[in-house]
Amino acid sequence: MNEMDTSRTLRLLFPQWQGGNNPPYVLGAHLLNWLAPKSNGPFEEVPVDLNPNVEKEQGIIAKSTVLQQARSAKSLIHKHNPERIVVLGGDCSVELAPFSYLNEKYDGDVALLWVDAHPDVSIPEDFENHHAHVLANLLGVGDQEFVAEVPHLFKPEQILYVGLNDMIDALHSEPMKNMKLDIVGPDEIKQDSSKVLQWLAEKKPSKIIIHFDLDVLDMKEFRSLLVAYPGTYEEYTKSFPQGSSMETIIRVLQDVAKSYDVVGLGITEHFPWDSYFLANMLSRLPLLGDIDNKERPVFNTL
Amino acid sequence: MNEMDTSRTLRLLFPQWQGGNNPPYVLGAHLLNWLAPKSNGPFEEVPVDLNPNVEKEQGIIAKSTVLQQARSAKSLIHKHNPERIVVLGGDCSVELAPFSYLNEKYDGDVALLWVDAHPDVSIPEDFENHHAHVLANLLGVGDQEFVAEVPHLFKPEQILYVGLNDMIDALHSEPMKNMKLDIVGPDEIKQDSSKVLQWLAEKKPSKIIIHFDLDVLDMKEFRSLLVAYPGTYEEYTKSFPQGSSMETIIRVLQDVAKSYDVVGLGITEHFPWDSYFLANMLSRLPLLGDIDNKERPVFNTL
Repeated sequence: MNEMDTSRTLRLLFPQWQGGNNPPYVLGAHLLNWLAPKSNGPFEEVPVDLNPNVEKEQGIIAKSTVLQQARSAKSLIHKHNPERIVVLGGDCSVELAPFSYLNEKYDGDVALLWVDAHPDVSIPEDFENHHAHVLANLLGVGDQEFVAEVPHLFKPEQILYVGLNDMIDALHSEPMKNMKLDIVGPDEIKQDSSKVLQWLAEKKPSKIIIHFDLDVLDMKEFRSLLVAYPGTYEEYTKSFPQGSSMETIIRVLQDVAKSYDVVGLGITEHFPWDSYFLANMLSRLPLLGDIDNKERPVFNTL
Repeated sequence: MNEMDTSRTLRLLFPQWQGGNNPPYVLGAHLLNWLAPKSNGPFEEVPVDLNPNVEKEQGIIAKSTVLQQARSAKSLIHKHNPERIVVLGGDCSVELAPFSYLNEKYDGDVALLWVDAHPDVSIPEDFENHHAHVLANLLGVGDQEFVAEVPHLFKPEQILYVGLNDMIDALHSEPMKNMKLDIVGPDEIKQDSSKVLQWLAEKKPSKIIIHFDLDVLDMKEFRSLLVAYPGTYEEYTKSFPQGSSMETIIRVLQDVAKSYDVVGLGITEHFPWDSYFLANMLSRLPLLGDIDNKERPVFNTL
């Protein structure tokens, strides 16, 4: 499955920050795009509102903006009608339009691997940031305007969590509790990928979509994560469950892609603290920036 | 001193890694350049050998390569004959050519602020990586082929260390011990910049050059430093002396630039662990890279 026509793979840069209500996601997305191997295929950047003033609307921070950005993404995708999509986020909420498109295109004959520390099935009644709602929406749960953006809903049996280890309570909310989504935890992928491959062997999907939230990684190895804010990092490394190593996740995704046709890959929640602070500093240094500028970096911590 | 003609400020990207014998400096330099505010002035990139095989020559790792790259930098600088230079490194050794040029151009009427955790006055007999030799060379000490690249040697009274807190022994080597370089330590800049401004008021230089090694920063706040390798970070935060905060260094440099004409700024030793690991990972993921690629990141730790 390694040879493919990249001319039909759309790369979608989606620097959305409102879904996590944190400005550094914008830089995170652009930096992810800058670090990614170059592609000759089609590329689009979803326009994102940079106005820092956001409000809660019907239980969701910046709901109308996030919804409108999802519609922009959908429109850009339909312009290309791609066979495959790489999404470079941005907060997790960026997956709504591309994954909806792919599930419709392949008529539900798709497995969705949700490689993430968190289940992302919260509802507005419990949590205000849309990045934690997106998988619920793809399953038909949550805010109905977002659900209306999913033309072909995913079924629970299409979903496998990989590496899930935090905030698992959201799976037991009233609208989610009968879904019984399958889970392969961090300990079950440490040695090999067999648990994931067995699940796929049973489901026999024609196509695979991968959601890869970088927060599934061990923050002691990879610190460009919201949770690894330098000011609270030490405390959090003690209290948060340990994530998976990069080599583990790479191996699982390579093993999957060697046997199945991957049509979607979304990488999200890149939160490059150091680069964000460094860019701010450079903009205030002599010969590079404005030496009268006293503006410190803007961000929210957990 | 905030208004200046940027058309005479050369920005020199110098992604040298051999002076620290560590490949991630290459990405560090390019990322620094990517994060820096855009400039309309002249720009040059010094060509750097990417062949990973380096050998020790006359006590210095990759001596002939580092020397040849310094000569390339010199030639690019002379092409523009700039009034001011911003150097984006790369290991600290990148400062040799630009600072030599500036000291010659302004006939030694220059103060050099060496904002760094380390004194960078090691000699080949004591240490094999040239990034720790560069200030010695600028003062006429060390390998004579490097010293020959400095047409107008700096005098010890032109130098002020700012934030120095580690490996101070190098100041007491035989060729350095009579130089008696001035030092303002991290504790002396915490509250205000007066110690640095007082020193400058006594020296009355017409021009200022600033060397800013990012390792002067507190690694608990900024972790894109060699010393903050994730695998040993926890141990090192306990055993290494604490660095300065970004806001402290920004304030000192802004205070200096408000009263003096800064003609050189070199930023060095950017070591972006997360971005380096992330770029490697992306190059091995489905739809983005090569799923048969098992090549892990290449680097040396302390």
